[in-house]
Amino acid sequence: MAERKEMPLWGWGDAEHSREVPLGAAENLSGELGFAAGTDVGARRIGDFDLAAPVLSPELLERLSSMVPTGSVSTEPWLRLLRAAGKSYADAVRMRAGRPGDAPDAVVTPGEEEEIAGVLQLCSELRIAVVPFGGGTSVVGGLSTIRKDFIGSISLDLGALSGLVSVDKDSLLATFRPGTKGPEAEALLKPYGLTVGHFPQSFEYASIGGFVATRSAGQSSTGYGRIDRNVMGLKVTTPTGRIELAPMPGSAAGPDLRQLLIGSEGTLGVIDEVTLRVHPSPASMVDRAWIAPDFETGREVLRLIEQDGCAPDVARLSDERETEVNLLLAGDSLAVKLLRRYLRLRRRSNGCLMITCFEGESVDVARRSQRASALMRKHHCLSLGSRVAKGWRKGRFAGPYIRDSLMDGGLFVETLETASNWSNLGRLYDAVRTELQGELEKEGGTPVVMCHVSHLYPTGASLYFTFAGKQPYDSVEERLALWQRVKGAACDAIRASGGTITHHHAVGTDHAPWLEDEIGAAGIRLLKAAKAELDPVGIMNPGRLMN
Amino acid sequence: MAERKEMPLWGWGDAEHSREVPLGAAENLSGELGFAAGTDVGARRIGDFDLAAPVLSPELLERLSSMVPTGSVSTEPWLRLLRAAGKSYADAVRMRAGRPGDAPDAVVTPGEEEEIAGVLQLCSELRIAVVPFGGGTSVVGGLSTIRKDFIGSISLDLGALSGLVSVDKDSLLATFRPGTKGPEAEALLKPYGLTVGHFPQSFEYASIGGFVATRSAGQSSTGYGRIDRNVMGLKVTTPTGRIELAPMPGSAAGPDLRQLLIGSEGTLGVIDEVTLRVHPSPASMVDRAWIAPDFETGREVLRLIEQDGCAPDVARLSDERETEVNLLLAGDSLAVKLLRRYLRLRRRSNGCLMITCFEGESVDVARRSQRASALMRKHHCLSLGSRVAKGWRKGRFAGPYIRDSLMDGGLFVETLETASNWSNLGRLYDAVRTELQGELEKEGGTPVVMCHVSHLYPTGASLYFTFAGKQPYDSVEERLALWQRVKGAACDAIRASGGTITHHHAVGTDHAPWLEDEIGAAGIRLLKAAKAELDPVGIMNPGRLMN
Ligand SMILES: Cc1cc2nc3c(=O)[nH]c(=O)nc-3n(C[C@H](O)[C@H](O)[C@H](O)COP(=O)(O)OP(=O)(O)OC[C@H]3O[C@@H](n4cnc5c(N)ncnc54)[C@H](O)[C@@H]3O)c2cc1C
Ligand SMILES: Cc1cc2nc3c(=O)[nH]c(=O)nc-3n(C[C@H](O)[C@H](O)[C@H](O)COP(=O)(O)OP(=O)(O)OC[C@H]3O[C@@H](n4cnc5c(N)ncnc54)[C@H](O)[C@@H]3O)c2cc1C
Repeated sequence: MAERKEMPLWGWGDAEHSREVPLGAAENLSGELGFAAGTDVGARRIGDFDLAAPVLSPELLERLSSMVPTGSVSTEPWLRLLRAAGKSYADAVRMRAGRPGDAPDAVVTPGEEEEIAGVLQLCSELRIAVVPFGGGTSVVGGLSTIRKDFIGSISLDLGALSGLVSVDKDSLLATFRPGTKGPEAEALLKPYGLTVGHFPQSFEYASIGGFVATRSAGQSSTGYGRIDRNVMGLKVTTPTGRIELAPMPGSAAGPDLRQLLIGSEGTLGVIDEVTLRVHPSPASMVDRAWIAPDFETGREVLRLIEQDGCAPDVARLSDERETEVNLLLAGDSLAVKLLRRYLRLRRRSNGCLMITCFEGESVDVARRSQRASALMRKHHCLSLGSRVAKGWRKGRFAGPYIRDSLMDGGLFVETLETASNWSNLGRLYDAVRTELQGELEKEGGTPVVMCHVSHLYPTGASLYFTFAGKQPYDSVEERLALWQRVKGAACDAIRASGGTITHHHAVGTDHAPWLEDEIGAAGIRLLKAAKAELDPVGIMNPGRLMN
Repeated sequence: MAERKEMPLWGWGDAEHSREVPLGAAENLSGELGFAAGTDVGARRIGDFDLAAPVLSPELLERLSSMVPTGSVSTEPWLRLLRAAGKSYADAVRMRAGRPGDAPDAVVTPGEEEEIAGVLQLCSELRIAVVPFGGGTSVVGGLSTIRKDFIGSISLDLGALSGLVSVDKDSLLATFRPGTKGPEAEALLKPYGLTVGHFPQSFEYASIGGFVATRSAGQSSTGYGRIDRNVMGLKVTTPTGRIELAPMPGSAAGPDLRQLLIGSEGTLGVIDEVTLRVHPSPASMVDRAWIAPDFETGREVLRLIEQDGCAPDVARLSDERETEVNLLLAGDSLAVKLLRRYLRLRRRSNGCLMITCFEGESVDVARRSQRASALMRKHHCLSLGSRVAKGWRKGRFAGPYIRDSLMDGGLFVETLETASNWSNLGRLYDAVRTELQGELEKEGGTPVVMCHVSHLYPTGASLYFTFAGKQPYDSVEERLALWQRVKGAACDAIRASGGTITHHHAVGTDHAPWLEDEIGAAGIRLLKAAKAELDPVGIMNPGRLMN
């Protein structure tokens, strides 16, 4: 088993990575929202954590061990903590307070896919809850321990099951083991001249199985497609048997059960093999930034470009507020100064930043980018050239580090996302923005609420909100109550304005209360019926999706 | 309610439409397979049919009537016969013999979608089987009456529920009532400059609800996408409640239940509203035919073109045998004579016909067709110009009429289809072709077995087989036994060679025995669990999909 790269309990990514908030931004936030760098870092060492002893007896642990002869069963406290949560704001609040809430009794790491069935059968027999653990990047409470009336709860860690099973280059298909991380998948495909093309912001740590379990969308999904569009075949081990659905290019053989398993978030079984449609590695890349006159015009241009068939693979349009903050975060470098001057000269003190990245075969990239540029210009968008866009590409996985430092400085900072049809996007944006602003203002200061359009489809697009406000409370309970209030108000607003409760973060525990509103009582009954059939004891990731 | 255009019981389409087999083909077939035009036409008048009286009592019929106040309940014999079957070879054998097998006790035609729920509830209470009827074009036994232990069986005719509910032009969305027929849907969208882009060969009679219930693919689905890719939202009335899934461009809100309902073939409920992604009406069309040196090279060129992103919207590649037959069927017109001469001059006595149609915005059509042409030439494909392709487009819905006349002349003639990944397509083709040839030869003569590639995907393509052989038997039972034997052998070969049991015809009763092999025992259990939840009495289209 390869040495595992673990994230710190209290935050994102590589513990050594720089987390400095640029000076200009820090000053701005400290005035408005009371940000004070490094004053609220919290628990860091094992002694800081309030961790209960595992409740599973040595005999039961022994029986579990016998199910994973090539793997391991561990009750090591630090490992239990590492598997106790994902990376949401709520997770961070708990971890930073040294109050993980609860943690798995044991971390079970199968050494082979074949060992999973035995673990699930034993856990069904004994009534032990099982939480599959991929990369641990869930931001919706997908990984916490929920004991209900089970006699114990384990984390089923898929981290040892990584690698490429096979490649069919003619058919553009690649089959992966579930625990393969984003960068590893790319490295494995590179020699074939292929790419998965799936780059969520969590790319560096998330796993192929996790992508599929959560219906993930990556930053380039406008071009390469969401993961659910690229899963051609998959295998799932459930407590009552294995489902194997071979890759087919298209089929009318009844309902597509792949789409019932994709997005099942570990509640139906463990996705232990995935066959993806993969893509030729891009031969050419054209990155370019633009300033749209306003958010509405920017959205309209993106709609036209997408429906014209010349959409970029990455398209991000920031609203006015996010555009300002981006410039602020970029610090007062020469580039930003020049940019401001350039905008002033063109009488654009304001506007909306748009990042576009075209990737692929070079003639096609040229065609699309030229057509898109013409449409941009026609709608009064100003080209900023390639530098800002290249900068975005370079720093595209760095955002989460800044969140950590904002939390270290005592702020409430969170993101949420939704999607809707083009004709409804303006209404949805206004509703969620207003709601977030109002709720955050209740705690004082001038909160930051910003948004970008991040994924384009012929019929609509997604909206991604980032917001920060005062976190005036000290206790875990109060901090979580504030989070719950703001998040809940935004979720209500999303559903009331016809957005999906989640475009790519998945449901987990956090969005579960809103799922019924979206898929209806009969929809929930369908999910429960599927669960009752595959997982009659209900051991698989209890509390997720349906309650 | 608009006057309903009904097909004749014994065959396809418009009873008055010409059904003549071109002279050259007829001569050829009469020698080889004993074809004799018009010698086996069978039952045509009501007196010819062996139809049992309806078993539902007048009281029950009265109660059914009360559920459809704006609709109707009819026990009229001709109407019951019209709703007793679809348009498969087996259906035709039965109908031509005047032996429909069984027919619904009543045809219930709701006048409004809201009336469906009451019908399903009453039928659940009384244990009456319900077979939804869209356009009646099923070729897999999707519409026959299967009584099991029900007290009766009705056809739920959706034909009165037709039309456009709404259009959202900005979002490229159109919402249809379930019974809307293909041509009507196109006519309704035309004023908006939009098209559904869904043209199965059955287009003129099939319904939107039927397309969705069967996961249909149309002749232009390489370009516009299969119906399952274009359904964004849908509403389904089940015996235990209604499922409404609003159109979302993309979502991570758990499993996609749309894809569990699409392809459910009436076994879970009645699809009574469909929101489709629609497409701008094409401004430009470029049709062109080619001759590929052989079937394998032709497939390889299509793969390259599809994966390059310059695929035509319609792509059909006939194997050597189908190419010959197509020329034969085209008769000895001047065009065909010239074509043969042209091929001889280029030392191509043989080869494979390829039809390509590019549709859409004119710059894009030009780009794709030019790139595709370059790839064609590089792989030694010979351009035949546009005439043959235009001819195909003109006659694209006429094929089924010829099947009728071949049956009238005493032949066994049938089609079947499958799909697989590119790397497996040659193996699948060889296996199915050999199997069909071998089974048909057992009845003597030289059977015709021909095939074309008809739908392209990045990861694979579909294969469509048409075959004809001797039908030496006279009784319905023997005729069906021959059909069953040949079909069964081909289906076994399809599954043994990794093809899907159906690429677009759906499962119905005919493919149901092979579904478990494709989706596994756990897959079948999942379907049954969904059915038990939504339709606990099991009234919805019994015998279809699962047995
Ligand atoms: C900073 C940050 C940025 C993010 N950006 C994006 C983004 O751009 N796009 C996006 O889509 N998401 C994003 N996410 C969310 C998260 O990364 C995705 O949900 C991701 O797909 C989770 O993958 P994972 O391997 O980490 O799964 P985990 O977090 O380990 O698990 C997620 C859920 O799936 C279940 N699960 C995991 N693996 C399996 C399996 N093999 N079988 C069955 N169930 C399983 C778990 O039980 C859990 O409920 C982001 C998260 C963070 C922290
Ligand atoms: C000559 C010919 C050519 C064909 N070519 C093609 C082709 O190119 N591509 C292709 O995909 N198919 C083709 N088919 C098959 C057939 O046309 C398709 O399956 C079509 O989608 C059926 O639509 P329909 O409205 O006629 O449905 P029906 O035949 O009336 O019904 C089909 C099945 O779906 C159920 N059903 C129908 N409507 C509903 C509803 N609203 N809710 C729930 N269940 C419902 C029925 O009970 C039945 O089981 C062809 C058939 C023929 C006869």
